[in-house]
Parts: sequence; structure tokens; C-alpha cells
Amino acid sequence: MMKINLAFIEDFLTTFIREEFKKLGFQRAVLGLSGGIDSSVTAFLGARALSPANIMALIMPYGQSFSRDVADAQEVARQLGFNSQIIDISPMIDAYFQQYPTENRILKGNKMARERMAILYDFSARHQALILGTSNKTELLLGYGTIHGDMASAINPLGDLYKTQIRQLARHLGVPEKIIAKTPTAGLWPGQTDEDELGLTYDEIDQILFRLVDQRQPRQAIINQGYPAAKVDRIISLIKKSEFKRKPPLIPKLSERTVTHDFLYPYDWDK
Amino acid sequence: MMKINLAFIEDFLTTFIREEFKKLGFQRAVLGLSGGIDSSVTAFLGARALSPANIMALIMPYGQSFSRDVADAQEVARQLGFNSQIIDISPMIDAYFQQYPTENRILKGNKMARERMAILYDFSARHQALILGTSNKTELLLGYGTIHGDMASAINPLGDLYKTQIRQLARHLGVPEKIIAKTPTAGLWPGQTDEDELGLTYDEIDQILFRLVDQRQPRQAIINQGYPAAKVDRIISLIKKSEFKRKPPLIPKLSERTVTHDFLYPYDWDK
Repeated sequence: MMKINLAFIEDFLTTFIREEFKKLGFQRAVLGLSGGIDSSVTAFLGARALSPANIMALIMPYGQSFSRDVADAQEVARQLGFNSQIIDISPMIDAYFQQYPTENRILKGNKMARERMAILYDFSARHQALILGTSNKTELLLGYGTIHGDMASAINPLGDLYKTQIRQLARHLGVPEKIIAKTPTAGLWPGQTDEDELGLTYDEIDQILFRLVDQRQPRQAIINQGYPAAKVDRIISLIKKSEFKRKPPLIPKLSERTVTHDFLYPYDWDK
Repeated sequence: MMKINLAFIEDFLTTFIREEFKKLGFQRAVLGLSGGIDSSVTAFLGARALSPANIMALIMPYGQSFSRDVADAQEVARQLGFNSQIIDISPMIDAYFQQYPTENRILKGNKMARERMAILYDFSARHQALILGTSNKTELLLGYGTIHGDMASAINPLGDLYKTQIRQLARHLGVPEKIIAKTPTAGLWPGQTDEDELGLTYDEIDQILFRLVDQRQPRQAIINQGYPAAKVDRIISLIKKSEFKRKPPLIPKLSERTVTHDFLYPYDWDK
């Protein structure tokens, strides 16, 4: 049911990337490589859709932490023939937290994600390169990402695939097994794992999300299938609390046509 | 025609802010004050909608530049009874451009706008305060702002008012005349003005935008009314080129329900 036709998906997403770049008039791409599965799969798709020499991979660690992930990201970039660059974000991050210290690791992680976003957009403008986003459907629905940080991009090829589906796609595309086998982490601190922090495994999350979102099953029907009520409710709560991350800023409607309400070029314009 | 009912708008926007804060469960607000008209008007509306003691104004200059604007922003914050704080963004900005130098002032301005955004979101999380956006309809339509920078916020009260309408509202609300009379500038560099950079005055821009967007008049009809074709075409071109700034990242649709396409809580969920 959540199995996907891998050959079809590969072709569909590769064509999507190629067509969007053509439509938008870009030849070059830039993406952030973390050494994790999502950005690696995005990189593999990008390499098939575009000329790898036109793809720039930015690897943006905080200082010396996560050196294994940096090495894995470099290996992916090398294997695919990208231009890659390591950018240590610690000088910018430290400059801020020296003035406004905190022990809160989420605050630090969000600031880092936004710094990486700002660097990607800076490189995007310098090199006329479109930003390939690396968010997946699971994290978009749970809000497990930073708004105006890792959730920001021009096009987001994996945005309609659940984490567990991306694992299948990764194997199909030949992403190195050591990257696929890694415990998923947002990289907020050493030893952090997504599943610990969420209190649920991705298998559980995706099965519940699929029933809730794709199949529109009511809460009780999902519980009746054996999924614990506490887990279903936790997921529903995460979806609701993160709705603001999936929406543009709210604008009160005053006029005939309002940005983000009903002014949408090219669908209703230019005729 | 572009005249607005100022008492109605004041009441409407004040109620909008108050209701949204209640719905979203927030009592505190944070906003960036630049010393310009848009953030000042937003501040005046916020002060009427919420308790001014619950509003935090961040004034975020780059070093010692724009000291007159900093003083004006401080005066607004003091007059309205906000908590205000000056945060010099130059340490974070310099840390980046020392590694990646550029003479391009647009690149620098965009990085600064994104730094301010990241600081606003950091304060938002630290103080459970919702971010009041300060974008206006003119700049949203022209794309005259930084995506994931000054265009980012939780709610954006002025997003459906043109710049020239905000001038009327500013007078009505009692914003200091010296702020209203200032030449509008994005503050990208000393001496920069919006109108020079756009090559059009806000009066011209808003009159053409109103006809194009609100009234859906065709290009030729607007030219026939005496607006120069080159100006009309320049505005159309700016709207088209900036469409990406008003949209979420593009996700290729693969499933029954896709984030940013047709998954929209609460409109189609929770029934």
C-alpha cells in the first residue's frame, strides 16, 4: 500500500526536476548535503536530471561536529561529480549566541538551519543556481523541520514521499548503504535521533500518517486497526501544531485580489 | 478609488490582530522596527490590538549605519510603551562576508534581511511571541523584499494595503510626521531609495498595480489611460519574475494528498 513503483518515481522526479529547471530558465542547481538519506537521494535525482558539473553541493557543518556525516556528504558529491564546498557555519552562529547565550538545543538548531538557508540563497543568487530542497512528506506533515530554514527551497522533489518510501528509493538509486542504514537525525546535537525525539519510529509514523492524510481514515478507525491511541493522537497533534510552517504569513483580506489568497500568477493572469 | 475608509481599516486590522493572537494562543508579539513607515504603522496597530507591555520591538541595524532610523525606531517603541532592544547584526554578517566577500549590495542586503528574520524567530521561540510582519501589498506584488527575510512572519497585517494607502493610514494613526515624510528605502545602503531603484514612484506603481491586479484591467487599457507602456511593462515584468517569492517550494504531486497542494488543515480535516 505504501509500496511505490520505484522505476516510475525515479523517472517522474527526474523529469520533474529537468522540466522545472527548463521552465524557470536555470541550468545550475545548488543543494545542501548533510550526509543523510534525504539530501543524498535528492542529489542522486539531481545528477540524473541535470548535468552534474552544474550542481553545487554545500556541506555546512557546525565546527568539527558530525565529521562522519561530512565525509559521507563529500563522498556522495565526489561520486556524482558535483562541485562541492565545505562551509563551517560556526563563526556566524557563535557571533549570535555569544550575545544571546542559551542552552536550548532546539534554538541553536533552528538558528543553524536558517544560516544554512541564507547561505544557500546567497550561493543561489551568486551562481544563478536554483535551490533543490530536501524535505520529505513525513517531516513536512509533522513540522519536524525549521520554517525558513531547511524547509525553504525553490523546488522540493521529495516533498510528497514519506521517509520510509525514500528508503526504498535510495536503495533503487544506489545511494551508499551506509547512508541508508544511518539512524535518521536532524543533526541538532551529537547522539540526537529523530525517532527518540519524536517518541515514535518512522515505520509507525508513516503508517499512521498514510491512513490519516492519504486515506482520510478517521482517528478511531486507525486505532481499531491496532495502532495505539496515544501514538495516533500524538501525530494528529504534531500535524495541527505545525500548520503554520506549511503556510505563508496570514494576510487579512481587504481588497478584490490579495496576495496568497486569490492573486496567483500565472493561473489567473496573463490571459 | 484607492482611497480607503481609514476608521474602518484601523478597526478591521486591530480586530484581526487581536483575534489571531487569541486563536493561535499567543499574548506576546515581536516585530522588527526599522524606523520606516511600514513597521511603524504595524507597531501602532499592534499597540492598539494588544497590551503594549507584551510587544517586543527589535531594532537591528548593521553597525553604526542608519543611526537616524535607529533613533526614530526607538522613539516609536518608547512612545508606544514597547520593550525594545537594539541588536547589531554586523558580527554575524561580517563573519560570513569575510569568508565570501562581495561588492554586490543586493547580496549583502538579502543576507542582512535573513539574519534579522532568524533573530526574530529566535526571539519568537524564546518568548512565546508571535512575529508581526511588516510587508505591504506593493512590495509583495513587485517582489521588492527578501524571501525568507523581511517577507517572513506569522501574520502580516499590512499585506493587503498599497504603500500609498499605508501613508494615509499612518497619518490617521498618528505616526510621527518625520517618519511618514521619509523617502522610502529598503536600507540596503546609505542613500538608496526604493523609487530610484525601481525607476518608478510609489504613486505611479500603486496606480498601475491597482488597475492590473485589483481591477484586472488589460495592459492596453491602462496604457490608453495615459500610463506609459514602458512603466506598465516594467511592473508586469516585476510581478512575473517575483512569483516564486509568494509561493511555497514546488512539490511534485505523487499521492492522494500533498502538502501545499491539497492538504490543508483545518479546512479539509478534523471533521
